[in-house]
Amino acid sequence: MQPPYLLFLGAETHIGNAKTGAGLAHWRSELCIGQHKLPEGTIDLGLEELELATAVSRGAKTLVIGVAPHGGSIDDSWLPVIFKALECGLNIAAGLHERLNDHPKISCIAKQYNCQLYDVRQPTEKFSVASGDKRSGKRLLTVGSDCAVGKKYSALAIEKEMRARNINADYRATGQTGVFISGGGFSIDAVVADFISGAVETLSPDNDDEHWDIVEGQGSLFHPSYAAVTVGLIHGTQPDVLVLCHDASRTCIQDTPNYPIVEFSECMDGYLAIARLTNKNVYFAGICVNTSMLSDKEAQEYLENLESKYQLPCCDPVRNGVSNIVDNLGL
Amino acid sequence: MQPPYLLFLGAETHIGNAKTGAGLAHWRSELCIGQHKLPEGTIDLGLEELELATAVSRGAKTLVIGVAPHGGSIDDSWLPVIFKALECGLNIAAGLHERLNDHPKISCIAKQYNCQLYDVRQPTEKFSVASGDKRSGKRLLTVGSDCAVGKKYSALAIEKEMRARNINADYRATGQTGVFISGGGFSIDAVVADFISGAVETLSPDNDDEHWDIVEGQGSLFHPSYAAVTVGLIHGTQPDVLVLCHDASRTCIQDTPNYPIVEFSECMDGYLAIARLTNKNVYFAGICVNTSMLSDKEAQEYLENLESKYQLPCCDPVRNGVSNIVDNLGL
Repeated sequence: MQPPYLLFLGAETHIGNAKTGAGLAHWRSELCIGQHKLPEGTIDLGLEELELATAVSRGAKTLVIGVAPHGGSIDDSWLPVIFKALECGLNIAAGLHERLNDHPKISCIAKQYNCQLYDVRQPTEKFSVASGDKRSGKRLLTVGSDCAVGKKYSALAIEKEMRARNINADYRATGQTGVFISGGGFSIDAVVADFISGAVETLSPDNDDEHWDIVEGQGSLFHPSYAAVTVGLIHGTQPDVLVLCHDASRTCIQDTPNYPIVEFSECMDGYLAIARLTNKNVYFAGICVNTSMLSDKEAQEYLENLESKYQLPCCDPVRNGVSNIVDNLGL
Repeated sequence: MQPPYLLFLGAETHIGNAKTGAGLAHWRSELCIGQHKLPEGTIDLGLEELELATAVSRGAKTLVIGVAPHGGSIDDSWLPVIFKALECGLNIAAGLHERLNDHPKISCIAKQYNCQLYDVRQPTEKFSVASGDKRSGKRLLTVGSDCAVGKKYSALAIEKEMRARNINADYRATGQTGVFISGGGFSIDAVVADFISGAVETLSPDNDDEHWDIVEGQGSLFHPSYAAVTVGLIHGTQPDVLVLCHDASRTCIQDTPNYPIVEFSECMDGYLAIARLTNKNVYFAGICVNTSMLSDKEAQEYLENLESKYQLPCCDPVRNGVSNIVDNLGL
């Protein structure tokens, strides 16, 4: 996938649906030349808003679809921009369930202008059924009280902190944004159901005893749409350590208002019950909270209350970093 | 799929891998003209063993691949039989992950002899993400202490018993054998992970308040390879009632000897914890046990002990029928 990137944000107004763009802008800002949105869009990733032709004149090579709406389809409102980008010579990259390459008009215009279409969500490997066999090395998995609560960000922050301490650690991407950021892994939610855990087993293979795989969580055990993916990811990862992620502003499960956020004790018990099937000794090392909707003082109080209640290190990875959680890994 | 069927059993020696053939022979015996196995095979479904040409002369229209090995691939040892069947004019039907239609040589020969290839495992519908919204009507789901313990058989037996009592009930197939038997449903283990629960929601849509969907279970919450499928099926079904299925001869999880069968209290608690997310009032109505490896007396004692220990109606659907479980549905 050829950088620099122009991040396309469509008409999106909900930052939670712009995770791919936000992740790339934060973790790979050096590769992002600007952003481009439709007039109705309100998302601002802090990059310069560029017209397609301007971006090309400044060297942009690939338009990355930085939004992933519910269901992962290509929105008709994006088509004029995608067509024009191809006419300007930009490659297009997306992490949607609906493939750019399967869209007759997009693939036809791409051929006409000799541009590449990258569908990063569809794994190209052929996976096997999971074995359940124990693997060497250590594994940490981030899990969520809900979807879109910072599991990827927390995993990347933990990898960064561990590497800063000269610990041999690798972030393992399990979603399209993580694949864009790290250049490895795959979107496990696009794997055929029978092979989820088997696919995940290949993501963090046998390694040195002191090596840590920091595996990006997906979905939530408490989300009625996505818990299957979460369970397959847990069983295949066989995590030694879990880190719970939460968004302090969330009161109910995303897109399903009849499902309240589960109390953290029950939430962690639920995760441990599932995770113990493939690793009897699994434990929680801490809680990462997105407190961006709180003031500094409110955030500090919120995290202190949480630490006192659950006797675990708690942090907002963006405000505080994750050093207190890494301190708790017994390294 | 054109009957009558000739059931192909390959070189299989484990009846658990011949579920498709055994299910068709038991529940749709009127459509099955005979069986055909390789010299190394030992499975006998009680049908007449027929050569391909003999089966055709007696009217067979379709060779059904009646075995589904671990991983669901087309075994090379089957190819000579498949090729010869096509040359004899038989259609071929399979419920494997690997598609007959994607096998270059099989599809080429099928075209040459103008025969149909039926891949029943691959759903042709486009599914959506689950909504988690409550649906009208009643739903019973069979769940297992392990894979291949009689979840499909139990569901079919419960449908039969309920219909005999003039209760409005429909079996809903979730695997290839059930699709072969009932002519509806789809293999949920072949659905893309993100859409498992959403697909399952379409399988038992809104219905009359007194109508029962009897949904065939898949996998097991305690199988390290397949629990993701099981969780997606539970959340999408939103069962009112669960029935636990077990094989009395099983001491560890199939194909994974390091995983012992979980004690039934823990097993049922695990299932209820998952199922309560989408239906707070879910309960277990009974336990179905495959006691085929026990004598009549041993089986009776086994089931009596189980009833006394768990205070639930217990039966072997083959030996006893499922009337005591249907009695417990509050109808």
